[in-house]
Amino acid sequence: MNEASLHGDDTYRYANIRLNFSSNVYNHFDHTRLFAHLAERMACIGSYPEPEPYALEAMIAAQAGIPADCVMVTNGATEAIYLIAQAYRGATSLIVQPTFAEYEEACRKAGHNIIHHPIPTTSIIPPWEERGGSHPTPDLIWMCNPNNPTGLVTPEETLFNLPTEERQKAILILDHSYAKFTEQKTLTPPNSCLGGTGATTLHSSLFILHSMTKEYAIPGLRLGYVMGNAQLLQQLRDLRMPWSVNSLAIEAGKYLLQHRDDYLIDVHGLMLERRRVAAALTATGCIDVMPSDTHILLCRLHNGSAPQLKERLATENGILIRDASNFHGLDKSYFRIAVQTKKENDELINILSSLVVQLT
Amino acid sequence: MNEASLHGDDTYRYANIRLNFSSNVYNHFDHTRLFAHLAERMACIGSYPEPEPYALEAMIAAQAGIPADCVMVTNGATEAIYLIAQAYRGATSLIVQPTFAEYEEACRKAGHNIIHHPIPTTSIIPPWEERGGSHPTPDLIWMCNPNNPTGLVTPEETLFNLPTEERQKAILILDHSYAKFTEQKTLTPPNSCLGGTGATTLHSSLFILHSMTKEYAIPGLRLGYVMGNAQLLQQLRDLRMPWSVNSLAIEAGKYLLQHRDDYLIDVHGLMLERRRVAAALTATGCIDVMPSDTHILLCRLHNGSAPQLKERLATENGILIRDASNFHGLDKSYFRIAVQTKKENDELINILSSLVVQLT
Repeated sequence: MNEASLHGDDTYRYANIRLNFSSNVYNHFDHTRLFAHLAERMACIGSYPEPEPYALEAMIAAQAGIPADCVMVTNGATEAIYLIAQAYRGATSLIVQPTFAEYEEACRKAGHNIIHHPIPTTSIIPPWEERGGSHPTPDLIWMCNPNNPTGLVTPEETLFNLPTEERQKAILILDHSYAKFTEQKTLTPPNSCLGGTGATTLHSSLFILHSMTKEYAIPGLRLGYVMGNAQLLQQLRDLRMPWSVNSLAIEAGKYLLQHRDDYLIDVHGLMLERRRVAAALTATGCIDVMPSDTHILLCRLHNGSAPQLKERLATENGILIRDASNFHGLDKSYFRIAVQTKKENDELINILSSLVVQLT
Repeated sequence: MNEASLHGDDTYRYANIRLNFSSNVYNHFDHTRLFAHLAERMACIGSYPEPEPYALEAMIAAQAGIPADCVMVTNGATEAIYLIAQAYRGATSLIVQPTFAEYEEACRKAGHNIIHHPIPTTSIIPPWEERGGSHPTPDLIWMCNPNNPTGLVTPEETLFNLPTEERQKAILILDHSYAKFTEQKTLTPPNSCLGGTGATTLHSSLFILHSMTKEYAIPGLRLGYVMGNAQLLQQLRDLRMPWSVNSLAIEAGKYLLQHRDDYLIDVHGLMLERRRVAAALTATGCIDVMPSDTHILLCRLHNGSAPQLKERLATENGILIRDASNFHGLDKSYFRIAVQTKKENDELINILSSLVVQLT
């Protein structure tokens, strides 16, 4: 399979993209000082990076208030996803869908038995008996929260109310890549679930994925990390290849942790803007906009197809959106956007409003 | 296992390394223009790289005169090693030893049955019957050529003379990471063994690994590639994660291919210098120097241990060498150096000459 077809941000396919709504990356940080710092440290590419990026792991752990061996820095969160899938080769994986395609890809490549479970509206995983018992009990449960492509947050307390038997069995993988982009406070705080001797059975079977790509808008550098119980993470460390995170990514990671205040965002303002965009698109009468708790909006066309719409916007308007038809359970009527600045959103709203009425 | 213990170039462990002989990277290219180019292109880290770096693969293939689908660019040659091992999970792998530790690491992590085979002096793999038939016929044969840590080149024509049965069975992995650093002309030229319909059975079961890390001295960027029959490479593409090579590494790769002439080295001069260093170290009367065809020298102490020597050189002199005691089949008396400039080599020779006579 050509991976290129699975994901957004395929700007490299088009000559003149001016406005990029296609990935979930928030594009409006000022990277001037980061770029200057990396240019200054460029000579680091003349030496090998640490085989495993321990120094950066220790910095992240210190800021989160957890032991250093509870953090593993990876070549994007994607490397963590692949290592988890490999560590549990042949397992039964339940994936809460529709969601980021790489959970399924990584599990498929590692020979998992895959169960697709529709995303519930009020709790992450309903009690197993309510699901009719039609599939085997999962060894792993994969959940993106806030979710991609829906932008919805699911309260994680419900996880703690799972029947004891299930709780003891399943390893939970919670992808918090978009946690910075919501006002919802229902996400599990990392330091409550990892450290200490009082960790419960649930706590000792939990991976939390983080994406510096998303938090700091540096998708080209490939930098993520996974938090978890040290014993759990050791399984991943035992499998990983050395030097998977390159020197400039490590340098950037250290810089960004030391300059987090330069990367704060007005989440409340962003949520207001998302509501405004959602209302404007709904007002076209040609688009259903799904509810969201983040800057991500999943949209459904009444007429026409998302691949068509994407192609016209890209080639005629230099605007990139995400054709969402390849997400599990979605069809060609779905597209996804990530809200950007007011000015950019206005342009998208104007162009979409005149375009969608022409679609048949 | 702590990977850090497996490899050289562990400058990050010491505060004041001035001279680095510890990795096999040739440290004397002028990277000024590359650095300026990357600084100029820094904004690329704000977008996702291609999920697979097709554009760079096409450039490499065009320069090598082979089809684009016969090249796969990887996150260092190490990613290629891990993907090959994963593609043949549980296989029997013969590794020509002593050599780069990651062949064994990757095979072990993928559940291979591993056979260590001593490096032969005159041919890559002697006919199987000569090895006494004491182990199963391998599915994969891993060979670094020129070899690390010995620096020796083994003529590859001998591979083509293997008995037909063996030739048809085994997949060969030839690591040409150091091919630029030898005058030996006995390496298989890539375009003779990959393309065309006339490829023999041997040709269709050959991976050739390349390291831009080594060729261009950019170990911090992590950039390598594997050449092979398109069907063979498809097995690796089917397993790989997206975005494993970051945007700056891809930018650097494109730049370097367009500026190869800035990265030419005087191989003949380097070989003369290696002979001079080898003679000087031998003249101490305390060091055996193994024969080499590259800039790499494997050395054996008559007295004392390599870990001790390394620690003293690092902490007292700011000089880093490679303790080679953890290579398969070697012991604590072995260290490895990569020859650098005449001035740097002179300093190493002087300090080593006075140090080794004190070792007991």
